[in-house]
Parts: sequence; C-alpha cells; structure tokens
Amino acid sequence: MHLRVGAAQEKARKIIIRELIQDDRRIVIEGVTPAVDDGRFAAKHQCGETMQIEADVYMDTQDKLAVDVLWKATNSRLWETIHLAPVGNDRWMGRITLEKVGLYEFVVEAWHDWFGTYHRGLLKKVEASVDVTLEIEEGRQMLKKSLAALKKEKTKSDEPFKRHQAANYNASIIRNLTKIIEALKPENGAKTPGDEFVANDTLLSNLYAYSEAQQTDLAILLSDFTLAVMHIAGPKEFLTHSQRYPVRAERRAAEFSSWYEMFPRSQSGDANRHGTFKDVIERLPSISAMGFDTLYFPPIHPIGEKNRKGKNNSLISAPTDPGSPYAIGSKEGGHDAIHPELGNWQDFRQLRDEAKALGIEIALDYAIQCSPDHPWLEEHPEWFDWRPDGTVKYAENPPKKYQDIVSLDFYAPQAIPHLWKALRDVVMLWAKEGVRTFRVDNPHTKPLPFWEWMIREVQAKYPDTIFLSEAFTTPKMMARLAKVGFTQSYTYFTWRNQKHEITEYLSQLLSGDTPEYFRPHFFVNTPDINPFYLQHTGRNGFLVRAVVAATTSGLWGISSGFEICEAEAIPEKEEFKNSEKYEIRVWDWNREGNIIPEITMLNRLRKTYPQLQTHLGLRFHPADNEQVLFYSKEGKRLPDQPLESLILVAINLSAHYLQDTNLELPLYMLGLDDHAAIEVHDLVSDARFTWHGKWQQARLDPAQYLYVIWEIRAAGI
Amino acid sequence: MHLRVGAAQEKARKIIIRELIQDDRRIVIEGVTPAVDDGRFAAKHQCGETMQIEADVYMDTQDKLAVDVLWKATNSRLWETIHLAPVGNDRWMGRITLEKVGLYEFVVEAWHDWFGTYHRGLLKKVEASVDVTLEIEEGRQMLKKSLAALKKEKTKSDEPFKRHQAANYNASIIRNLTKIIEALKPENGAKTPGDEFVANDTLLSNLYAYSEAQQTDLAILLSDFTLAVMHIAGPKEFLTHSQRYPVRAERRAAEFSSWYEMFPRSQSGDANRHGTFKDVIERLPSISAMGFDTLYFPPIHPIGEKNRKGKNNSLISAPTDPGSPYAIGSKEGGHDAIHPELGNWQDFRQLRDEAKALGIEIALDYAIQCSPDHPWLEEHPEWFDWRPDGTVKYAENPPKKYQDIVSLDFYAPQAIPHLWKALRDVVMLWAKEGVRTFRVDNPHTKPLPFWEWMIREVQAKYPDTIFLSEAFTTPKMMARLAKVGFTQSYTYFTWRNQKHEITEYLSQLLSGDTPEYFRPHFFVNTPDINPFYLQHTGRNGFLVRAVVAATTSGLWGISSGFEICEAEAIPEKEEFKNSEKYEIRVWDWNREGNIIPEITMLNRLRKTYPQLQTHLGLRFHPADNEQVLFYSKEGKRLPDQPLESLILVAINLSAHYLQDTNLELPLYMLGLDDHAAIEVHDLVSDARFTWHGKWQQARLDPAQYLYVIWEIRAAGI
Repeated sequence: MHLRVGAAQEKARKIIIRELIQDDRRIVIEGVTPAVDDGRFAAKHQCGETMQIEADVYMDTQDKLAVDVLWKATNSRLWETIHLAPVGNDRWMGRITLEKVGLYEFVVEAWHDWFGTYHRGLLKKVEASVDVTLEIEEGRQMLKKSLAALKKEKTKSDEPFKRHQAANYNASIIRNLTKIIEALKPENGAKTPGDEFVANDTLLSNLYAYSEAQQTDLAILLSDFTLAVMHIAGPKEFLTHSQRYPVRAERRAAEFSSWYEMFPRSQSGDANRHGTFKDVIERLPSISAMGFDTLYFPPIHPIGEKNRKGKNNSLISAPTDPGSPYAIGSKEGGHDAIHPELGNWQDFRQLRDEAKALGIEIALDYAIQCSPDHPWLEEHPEWFDWRPDGTVKYAENPPKKYQDIVSLDFYAPQAIPHLWKALRDVVMLWAKEGVRTFRVDNPHTKPLPFWEWMIREVQAKYPDTIFLSEAFTTPKMMARLAKVGFTQSYTYFTWRNQKHEITEYLSQLLSGDTPEYFRPHFFVNTPDINPFYLQHTGRNGFLVRAVVAATTSGLWGISSGFEICEAEAIPEKEEFKNSEKYEIRVWDWNREGNIIPEITMLNRLRKTYPQLQTHLGLRFHPADNEQVLFYSKEGKRLPDQPLESLILVAINLSAHYLQDTNLELPLYMLGLDDHAAIEVHDLVSDARFTWHGKWQQARLDPAQYLYVIWEIRAAGI
Repeated sequence: MHLRVGAAQEKARKIIIRELIQDDRRIVIEGVTPAVDDGRFAAKHQCGETMQIEADVYMDTQDKLAVDVLWKATNSRLWETIHLAPVGNDRWMGRITLEKVGLYEFVVEAWHDWFGTYHRGLLKKVEASVDVTLEIEEGRQMLKKSLAALKKEKTKSDEPFKRHQAANYNASIIRNLTKIIEALKPENGAKTPGDEFVANDTLLSNLYAYSEAQQTDLAILLSDFTLAVMHIAGPKEFLTHSQRYPVRAERRAAEFSSWYEMFPRSQSGDANRHGTFKDVIERLPSISAMGFDTLYFPPIHPIGEKNRKGKNNSLISAPTDPGSPYAIGSKEGGHDAIHPELGNWQDFRQLRDEAKALGIEIALDYAIQCSPDHPWLEEHPEWFDWRPDGTVKYAENPPKKYQDIVSLDFYAPQAIPHLWKALRDVVMLWAKEGVRTFRVDNPHTKPLPFWEWMIREVQAKYPDTIFLSEAFTTPKMMARLAKVGFTQSYTYFTWRNQKHEITEYLSQLLSGDTPEYFRPHFFVNTPDINPFYLQHTGRNGFLVRAVVAATTSGLWGISSGFEICEAEAIPEKEEFKNSEKYEIRVWDWNREGNIIPEITMLNRLRKTYPQLQTHLGLRFHPADNEQVLFYSKEGKRLPDQPLESLILVAINLSAHYLQDTNLELPLYMLGLDDHAAIEVHDLVSDARFTWHGKWQQARLDPAQYLYVIWEIRAAGI
C-alpha cells in the first residue's frame, strides 16, 4: 500500500518529467465541454442559465476516480467546487449557473480515489464473507496517514486553486477524521460506534461472519460518513488538472434581440431637410410598437467633404449631397464626434433615454476608416500608409480605388500601441455614453489580434457590451471573428432562400462546436443588400423571409423600408436604387401592402415563446414538397429535461403558388407514438384544435396561409 | 508603404504581446492535417507513400499569402521546404514523401506576400491602363529594401529553422536581386532588359499605353523571374509558424501483415511432450504456405511454480501441468529468459532465422506481470505492493484474486525510474535479438505515461519496432493507447458479427481523425476469445469471419486451431475448453473440414491487391438483404488520383441459409454512369465476365458461393 501524497509523488513526477519531456499525467482529461478550440477561446453562455460541464476522464485502472470542477469569475480569487458524476463511457458531468455577466473560467480536476476504491472492494469482500483482517488494518493506516497529511496541508499556502472553504472547513474535516480514527482504535474493541457510522443494509446482513470487534470496525470503515469525510480528506493520488477553460456569460440581448436599422438623417419626413435625433425620437413609438428592441444607426459621425460620394455612389457629388456616413471624419471631428446636422450630445442622450424608456437600446456602427478630412490625418499621419510621392494611400481593390476613404495601417511602426488605444477609446467613449451594442463594419479587414485585445479591454470595463461582426467573407474567417470575441455575427442568411440552402446552412451553424461561439444574426436586408429574392417576390416574399428569420434565430433584424416591402433596385444588382447610403430618403410608413402587422405579430411571438429566443433547438422535418420548409423549435434544454411543447413552422417558400404537402410531425420528440393525439395551438390565428397521428396534410395557399406557426403538445396535458 | 522586416516589426510585436498576453499572430494557421489532437501525438504514416499536408491559412486581407511547409526527420538538424498551393476556401495543400522509418515533424509557415500582392495589383492596373508611375517607384524601393535586408540576414545565425540551402543559396538570390535592381535603374532608361525578364503576353499587349522607359520597368517588375526571386528575397511580413506536428513513418508491416498465433509448447505432436522451438521450426513451412508473415507466441519465459494454474484455469495444478505462460518468472529467470523446456537462446535464434528465410517475422508477447517466483520479487521488492502483514499484493478484482500473478507498482517510490528502465530494457533485449514486433498484454492496466516513454525510447534505438496493443476496454482508452504510441490495436471485431454491427464499427474506425492514429488488427479468435458466433456456425462461420477480417483490414490474425475450425468451448462461455493457456494440446492440422485452402487464397489475394493491404478506402454499399454484407475496397489514394479498379466483396453472414440479394455496385466511384458496362474479375474462381448497370442480383448459396470477391473496372480499359 504505497501512499503517494506529497513529497514522494512529487519527486517521482519530476524524474518522469525530466526523462519524458512529454505528458506525465497518468489520468487523462479530454473532450471537455463547453470549449472552443479546446479552451483557446471562450465559450459563450447566457447568464442565469444552467451550464452543463462534461469531460472524458479515465486512467489505467478499474479503480474509482473522483472528478471535480473548479470554477470562478476570472476576476475573482476564490474557486468554487462541484463534483462531477460518471454518465457512462468514461464521461463525467456536472452543472453550474453563471449569475453575472462577465468572463469565467473552469478547470477539471481528477484524482485516483484510493479510499473510494478501497471502500468498494471491502464491501464486495464482506458481501463474499472473505477474510478482511488485513483490509481493516489497511483502512486504519490510510485514515491515519490522511489525517497526518491533512494537518500538514493546513499550514501550506501554495495551493494553486484557493477554495472558499479554506481553514475553517479543513478544521471540521480534521475533527471528523479524528473521531473516526478514535472509534477504530483496537482497544475500543466491540464498543458501539457513534450514530454517524450507519452501515448499509446489505452489509449488515453479512457481518455475522466476522468477530464482534471486526463488525464494529467494518461498520465504521464502510459507513457513508467515513466515505464522505475521506472523499475530502483522503489522498488525491495522481491529482490532475485540465487547462483553464474560459466561458463568457452574457446578457440576454446577446442571444435574443430584434433589430431595426435606420438612417437618422432620413427621419425628417422631408427629403430636403436633414433628419435629426429629435426626428428619430418621434419615430420611436412606432418602432417599439412593431416589437423591436435594438435600434441601430449607421455611423453618426461627421462626414468628409473631400471626394464625397454623390447619389447612387457617384464619384461626383452635388453641394447638397450628404455623402456616405461611412466616410467618417471632417473638420467637425472624427469617430468621437456627432455629425452636427443630426444634433448635439444633448440630443443624442435624450434619444438614448427616450428609447430606453420604450425598451429600446441604441446600437452604433463602428467603422474603422477615415475620410481624407478625418482629424487623425493631421494629428497622426504615422497611422496611415503613405506613398512615395507623399500622398496617402486610398483603399483600393485594383484597379478600383475608393477615394472617399483612406485606410488606417494597424501595423505602421508608430501605430502600435497608440492607434490601437485610440480605436479602443472610441468604443470606450460611446460605451460611457450608455451605448453597449456595436455593429462592427467589415471586421475581417482588420487584424484579428486587434479585435481580441480591443473587445476584451472594453468588456473588462463594460462587461455587457455586445459586438456584432459584419463580415461577409470566407466561413473560416467569420468563425474566427466570433471566436476572438464578437458576440454575434452577420451570416449568409440573405443568400439562402431555397429549402436545401436554408436547411444546409442552418444545419452547419448548429453542428460541431459552432453553437459554442457563433451566434447568427439574421438580417433580412441591409442598406448594402437588396436581395434578389425580395426584388422579385414582392410582399409575400417579404413575409416569407421575415417568418424564416424571426422564427429560426434569436437575433433578427430589418433595415428600414423592409416593413413597407421596399426593394427598388439598381438593375441586375443586389443594391438599392437611390440608396440611403448616399442621400436622404423619405418614406410613407403606412404605404399600402406594408407588413407591419405581421412583423408586430412575429416579434410578439418571439417575446412570448422562449423557443423563438435562440437559434438552438432547431430541427428540420420532412415535408414532401420542395417549396415547403418545415421545422420545429424546442429551445434550449438540458438532456434530461422533458420536452412539453414544441413550436412548428411551415412556410411556402414559393411565396406565390399554392402548395400542398404532407408534413411529418416530430411526435417522437414529445415522447409520443406515431398515432398519438396532440393539441395544436395556431399561434397566428390563436385557434386551438386536436390532431391525431404524425402525418398531417397542409395546404399553404398564399391567399390564405402563406405560413403556419403552431405550438403542439400531447393532448390532455 | 511600411516595410516591416526586422526591428520595427519585432518591436511592434513585443509591445502587442506585452499588452495582449494572448495570441498576437495576425495570420491564422489552423486545421492542420495530418494531425492527432492538433499535434499532441504523432500521426501515423507509411514509409515511401506520398503524404498530403493541408492547413487553413488566412488573414485580414484579400492580399496574397505565401504558405510553406518546413519538415525534417526529428533527429535531423536541417529543414526541407515545400510550397503549399491554395485549393479554395482558405485551404492550402502540399505533398511530401517520408522515405525512412522514424519520427518526423513539420511546421506550417505563412507570411503576407508583399511582392506577390504588389505584382498582382500592378498587373491589373496595367491591364486597365491606369497611371502606374508611383507603383513603379514603390516596386523599385521594395527591391532595394529587400536586398538590404537580405544582406543583413546573411550574417544572422539565430534562424530557428535552419534550411539546407543556407549561405550558397542566399548568395545566388542576392546576385539575382542585384541584377534586377541594376536593370531598373532610372538612368538605364529604355535599355532592353536581359532575357530573364520575359513579361507575359496579356501584359505586352497593354504596355503600349506607357512610355518606353516605363515599358522596360514594367517588363522587369512583372516578369516571372522577378516574382520568383522576390518570393524568396521579398519581405516575409507577419511571418507566422504553426506548432510542430509529429508524424511517424512506419514500415509496411505496421499496416499490412497476416498474423498466426501459436503456443510453441503445443507443437510437439505429442500431448505428453513439451513442444520446443525446434518443433516450431518444423511447422514453419505450413504457416508460410498459408501466407502468414507474422508468427506470434504467447510469453516464452520461465513459468512460475507457486500457485500455478491447472487445466481449465483450475486453482489446483497437477505436477505435470505446464502452467499459464502469463505467470512469468521462476528461479530460471524472468522476462529476459527463455523457458528451458522450449529450448535455449541458440534454438530461439535458429527459429528466428529460419522463419525470416520464409518471410516470417517472430512476434513476442510483452506481458508486464510476474509470477510469485519472479526473480524481481527478491531483487527488487520495492517494485511491488506489500500489505501490512508483509505479504505481496496479488492482482485482484474483488472478491476474485489472481494468485498466480503479482502486479508491479509503477509508482512505488523506488520504482521510478528503475522499474521503468528495467521494463524498457526487457524490450530492448529482445529487439537486440531481432524481435521487432511485440504484442502487449493488457496495456490499459499500466500507466499511459509509461507507454509513451517506453515506446519512444525503444523506437529511438530500433525505429522499426511494432507494438500491438491488446486492450479490450473502453473506446477512449483504446484510442489513447494508439495515440501514445501503439502501432496497432486489437479491436471489438470479434464481437461484431451482424451486418449493422460490422458496418457501424468499421465506419467508426474510419471516421474523424481515427485513421491518423488507430490501426485496427482483426483477430478472428484468440486463446482468450472463442467467439459465440464461431461456436454455433461451424466451418461456414469460420469462412465468413476469415473473409471479413482478411478483406476489410490490412492486419488480420488467427490463433492456431482456427484453420481447422476448432471452437470447443466451456459451455455458455467465450472460452476454449481445455485451453492451451493451461495445457499442451495436439492438433490434426489436416482435420476434415479445415479451411486451410481458403485462408491460403485470402492471404494470396491480400499480397496481390494493394486495396486489401489497409483498412482505409473501405465503403459499405446497399444490399437489400440484412444477411448480406457488401462493401468495396479502393485502397489508399490521393484525392486527385483516378480510381481504375475496385475490389467488391459480398458475404452471406447467415453462414448457412441461401440468400438472394440485389447489390448496388458503386459505379460512380469509377466515374461511370449507372448503366455502364464493367469488367468483372472473380478473384476466387479467376473467372472474368462483363456486366451492365449498377444493380446486380446475387445468390449467395452456402453450398456454392458463401461469399464473392470481385475486382471491377470500366469495360474496355
């Protein structure tokens, strides 16, 4: 019986390490979840929700292992502990709840459970009535050694994982262990042990084979009390720790929010008058009434004069043209200033507060680029890229040049750290002004290390800050941006219109560890994307896209005009004609054929049904018509939590032609057989009815039902 | 144009690192293959075969990247280089061939390709006939800076990746770069540049828009020669390296071998006479004739007397009982000795050599356990686990005890490093005697760090050593043993008999990165496993299992007796009656109903067809009869290598009942349409015929064809 606590084990380890260089850990801890790239990046989680932690833990023995998880907020000093339970096939599981917004970390800790193994073996031997004289002596020795080790430990201060309990807790363990050892003393003989030492029934019926003194010893050694004390006090042989796995707990809006995008300058109701923040305030009640809770503006900063773009992206601008708000910076200021025509800081704050009163959060655009008039060109020429003739380098995609925009050079010799800090401080400034949501323009053309650093810096000070990545690029870069810190991501959703496209894309977003880091934000349109699908399907097409976006993803958004089915395009292009990016537009919000009632209904359902507040828990189901998309939403659920109801959505993607289809309802998900009776609640019409069996016929007639949204549950529940 | 070679970049980097702590790499290198646990363990590869290396490489720009792979044998000092080519979606690919057995490593290296990007942009601008005066000047400056940097580099010696080329190579690059810069000098004006500077045709037709002097400059700057020189000489901005990825190149037998297992003591032909190595020599020609090339013996060491097991695992042994060879060690010696009744060292060497002459390699058993008579108990009591009464601890699984075996304690205070070294030296000893294949008994009950260290130590000295892991335990431990170094692994194959079981299990072995580290060895039986399937299916069942094993896996094996369909069992158990583990048996190798001809045929096909020399390239295909297993073998193939022929195997798993089935031939794999004509070569009968179309009817009548093995190819090829 070699007990390897402390020095001997350490010495042995060191020798192995020296010789092996490689991993000397006898216990394997792997396959830890949640984890992104095995802990390189933080997994994303929602505050207040139960988080299930799992790991594969095993070693070269059939002996018992003990597995704990240590966890804490990253900025805290003390670790909490939970025990993991084996769930089969070397997998262990436990649950915690992260209550506050912020960064957390956890570590999986495992050890060879000497006493647990001894206890199990002794129990089996007693059940088989074999001689256990030596075993009793081994138990006695182990208890003593553990006590000695524990007393020594009390004085140690170099514990890498400082627990809450600490000193007081240890003292009580020492007390209990001493009590056990006292009771076991041979001279105590057949003395009846204390009430703590209640052995289990199976055991008691087998004890008759042993002497009275042995019966007492066995009752003590095999009691649950001794087992519990020794779980903490016993030797932690081959104690092994995983690396630290970070997790970010985020507020609800990180995962569930409905966005409305608008150009404040277009809100005056008069194409000849530049809209202001005050005009936006007038619009707030109607946006709130539609059920949107995030109001997002393209850049609100001063716009450059030099090389200003004219209407429809023309290289020549008229004196009255307002320019693209993405050409940031003029003599009136840069990213830290407000475009004077929109109003002043006071106006902005008033807008922010009035929006908040209506449950609306303001989201700003964070676009790292400068007009040639940006103050930084004079103040910090070293942050830009200069050509041999002394001119600044414009953004270009040869042979095209973007002459209203000059790019910052993140790795210019003088740019680090000053430029990086200046860029961070822009976000800090707006965060201080109460803005906690930023839509980031083209992050994939700026360095990943910058984002990882900047987002962490901002969130360290303002943990509730949300960053939405507007990167339309290759899938791997989009994923990486989400990993380095972006809370939410634009997606390819706008270009996924057919049944197989939607099914495939959403399945990808739900596969592997993607859900741990990538939160898709489904915008149905943007000022830059006037999708072909909407250009030729009209009002019904707008409804189709709104329903798909609003019911598949916790995050969806529309750009102003969508609610009145605006899709006038530059021919053959996915661009808007007379885009608001380059001019002030005025809209009739009550235009005939608008879908404001439907959008309002969708946002209402989203607020009512948790299943619609996340893209997770989405599953596609068979509909034998290629024009009919059919899926269920079950929301987020722990594996052992029963499913009581399910949202079902069926949509006629053709938008214009009647489609008959057979739908296979996933009754199995509710634990029902194929012929069960179910209660159906039509969430659009509020009608309720009862159905029987999994196969149901549906007629999706655009004149009547372009789509259906049902909640189903077992009948009679 | 900020050129960041050398100091400036380094300084910038250091500042970022200080501030960020995190990853400062602007270029992402991820998803590297081949890799096991992202480089923690070596991927396995066969010597002499092309190895395809891939990686996802991207950064925040649409500029050009350059990606190389540096690689070398781990024990070499100099790195080789290959360029990777982009294959779409941020993925890069290149190929190398590892010629020698041993450990290799590779590193992916990527950088922002300034000159490549410049070259591509300039080409587009010239094609669009825009003014490029500044661009020419930028190119000139970059060439000069690169030359300066290169000259400086020549004197540097701290390069982390020392290349073969080194000094001489650099000198030639400097010469070429100087030549380019000379040609570009403004005073050279319209002077015709040298023959090296041949611009491409598209370019030439556009040059007319420029002055004569500019035409010359452009021809030089845009030439392939300049591009090639600058690929090496140009700045490697944001140079990024992946970690090192280890790869083990192994000999063919690691992946392809046919094993025959026997107890040498049963080879005398007389149950009353202990067989010897000389008796085994007599048996070699028949084993060779069957086509086996690895001959594996259970332990050949002295067997303990104390607590020796009797026949059928009895606790009581008769004086004549030979004991279990797994109770290793007696006064005659331990793991480093030969059981005297088998012969002496001279006999062993003779056997080894005669086997080799017949193309047969000897494999030994490596069983880390000792009989109570093992010399180590006296010589090294500190390596064992002792109980409070001074007795040694026997192996046990409470309440069972294994009293003929005592276990070594790998973490006893005195055991490290002495016991570990002693155990390693046992293998070294036999390796020195020419044994290079070890079947390791129950490795999952010994520490993983021990295996990782021991195998590496042995392979450092004897790189061609093969270790077969005999671990029947949980899947994760079996996988981990393969990762830490075991060349091959026993599997669950013996218990996978039904169509869905075989399909599922083999699909698992072929999924994810499992093929990178796990080589399944399909034993159809072992002295410990007398499968129920064989106990009740008789000769036909033996054929079924032989065909499945021999045609799905590169590694298969039989334990002596299989060829004569021996399956006499202890009732209700998967154990042999009168097992050779506990007694000397004698067999009639010509017993009626033996399947020696079929085994011989299978091993012949395996030697002829590379498709059968690996478990890779296996695919299951539809057969509409649950008793018929149907699959193809295409062998190992690079993605762009066309498939010329395919092995098809269909087997009647019922073994006894006629089965009709429709088979869907995978003509698509040969690039053929569903109605194509194919040539079929029946490899069992050697018949040849032509078929049309993918659907074929087959009648698998046990009386005629229990199984078929075809090679198919497009007709007329």
